[in-house]
Amino acid sequence: MDTIQSDGYSIFFDDSITELFKFVEQGNYSKVFVLTDDNTGIHCLPLLQPHLVKLNSYDLIEITAGEENKTIDFCIGVWKMLIDFGADRKALMINLGGGVVTDLGGFVASTYKRGIDFVQVPTTLLSQVDASVGGKTGVDVDGIKNIIGTFTQPKAVFMNDGFLSTLPQRQLLSGLAEMLKHGLICDADYWDELKESDLSLPSAELIYRSVEIKNAVVLEDPHEKNIRKALNFGHTVGHAVETYSLLNDDDPLTHGEAIAIGMICEAWLSNKKAGLSTNQLDEVASVITRLYPKYEVKADSQAELFKLMLNDKKNFDGQINCTLLKRIGDFSIDNLCTEVELYDSLNYYAGL
Amino acid sequence: MDTIQSDGYSIFFDDSITELFKFVEQGNYSKVFVLTDDNTGIHCLPLLQPHLVKLNSYDLIEITAGEENKTIDFCIGVWKMLIDFGADRKALMINLGGGVVTDLGGFVASTYKRGIDFVQVPTTLLSQVDASVGGKTGVDVDGIKNIIGTFTQPKAVFMNDGFLSTLPQRQLLSGLAEMLKHGLICDADYWDELKESDLSLPSAELIYRSVEIKNAVVLEDPHEKNIRKALNFGHTVGHAVETYSLLNDDDPLTHGEAIAIGMICEAWLSNKKAGLSTNQLDEVASVITRLYPKYEVKADSQAELFKLMLNDKKNFDGQINCTLLKRIGDFSIDNLCTEVELYDSLNYYAGL
Repeated sequence: MDTIQSDGYSIFFDDSITELFKFVEQGNYSKVFVLTDDNTGIHCLPLLQPHLVKLNSYDLIEITAGEENKTIDFCIGVWKMLIDFGADRKALMINLGGGVVTDLGGFVASTYKRGIDFVQVPTTLLSQVDASVGGKTGVDVDGIKNIIGTFTQPKAVFMNDGFLSTLPQRQLLSGLAEMLKHGLICDADYWDELKESDLSLPSAELIYRSVEIKNAVVLEDPHEKNIRKALNFGHTVGHAVETYSLLNDDDPLTHGEAIAIGMICEAWLSNKKAGLSTNQLDEVASVITRLYPKYEVKADSQAELFKLMLNDKKNFDGQINCTLLKRIGDFSIDNLCTEVELYDSLNYYAGL
Repeated sequence: MDTIQSDGYSIFFDDSITELFKFVEQGNYSKVFVLTDDNTGIHCLPLLQPHLVKLNSYDLIEITAGEENKTIDFCIGVWKMLIDFGADRKALMINLGGGVVTDLGGFVASTYKRGIDFVQVPTTLLSQVDASVGGKTGVDVDGIKNIIGTFTQPKAVFMNDGFLSTLPQRQLLSGLAEMLKHGLICDADYWDELKESDLSLPSAELIYRSVEIKNAVVLEDPHEKNIRKALNFGHTVGHAVETYSLLNDDDPLTHGEAIAIGMICEAWLSNKKAGLSTNQLDEVASVITRLYPKYEVKADSQAELFKLMLNDKKNFDGQINCTLLKRIGDFSIDNLCTEVELYDSLNYYAGL
């Protein structure tokens, strides 16, 4: 698989660990920091360790695993450690982990001393196909997802499917939702391929194709002015459901589980407002419900979900702005949806 | 005085309040937020109020005045208020205040939803001649100055010398230090002019010239790769003294008072290492000591000052990197100074 060229940096697939340390050596960094969480510290760091010990010096910074820790408070902890370790402007941060580590680590690096270099080594399927391409960094404040962040490109991204074999099935399914989305918005053939594949461990080729699609969209519109909004399909409702679950459930939904619900709701809205045929709506709903467990969205939580949607970055002036599907493989941006339409879409999901 | 063109934005001098609200109207913003502190809320906001009430809607956010409050914790407070007020990506933030408000407000705006528009209305001499030109935003963590921040340009800057008449003399002197620096690094004629002027309230023309100098330097090197380091003259020692005073003194030094000390120390280093003549060293020391009160740097605090210098953003790999003067009106970047040389420069200041 060829290296993919993104906005000023490369995404490496083959021999990526070797490539990572070639990059580190050539960069002449004053210090190297590896950010992990308690899972990747155990399962993924060992793959890097033989190379790390050959460096003059490096430091490990570990955060607690879990979406609920992608907060500004954890950023403060990491900034303080960088200060204590004497990190200067020529330091490098290697973010080794899932979306929490890559989003938070990217934000910390992009603001420490007004920006130091960082690279992403995504270790979950979700972070490989989503968080590590596109230059978005972000953390949560008050439970509002990614409300604080920057647009900053990493210096490189290193993909390695060796990390995926240790992932629980639920984590794989979380990443798969974004892959399904890439097919739905841009590539009907890819959607068909996914439908027919064994998705218990997606192949390296399927992952590669997903990164290609996301990268192409992002390159066309790095600051989310127009076409990049395609990637928001499923995310208006999905993000609200995800935040709601994080605040209310003992065992909250994963990102992908929430986006799966969002894609069904927004496919329903697509059928009402953007031309998606009823046949294709049925197909989307049936593929997704087959893969993901049913979640109960209680009727009395709908108002809270709507309030969360109003907080979404893409919404202006009290209106809810959705990306919808014209058909499988093609999207339509800037569809304004009313409160009632959004409730109806949630009712459609509840009735499946 | 003509409008100065900076990196993609304008710095208005004449009729700047009128220009500000012309800008607001043309921007078609979803909401306008005015960030003040408890001083500017009383002394400066009234100048904006007649125009503000004509807007459809605006909200005030007030932070507590004082350098010690330019912290990440106050940022969190402002982010939460923006969330509560429902600020979306098309909101505008007007930062009305001194460097604390413009630096912190710029950082908050540049990271809220990955960046909303902001404009600077600097109300102190220091923020007019320094903080509002150059696109640096920043806040402190653990007492380390500006350790977190971004390079983000405001959409415009509005200067108004009407704000300065309410400033205490000590605040005016704080800004004056940066003006003296602009002369020392780039313009010997301007230094001579300053020497001969009544500096109890610097004229609008002197302020304008200072902004011109800073703007020219910044435009040449927006990301501080080389020539912009000129602006760090006096700031290696000065920042350390400022932080030390903030942590240890009941009535801490102002920024300019600390930079005044830094400029004397670094003029001494310039004489040792960069070619500044002894005559010119004497001239710099005598002009500055005439304007600023003497501060006692205790011998046993020197080690702590050195540790603070090591934390400075410009220092790599344990070496202290100073911008020095070749002569009055010309600078030399990237001079590495040893611990002993820095102690000697502090001893020179102490012996004046």
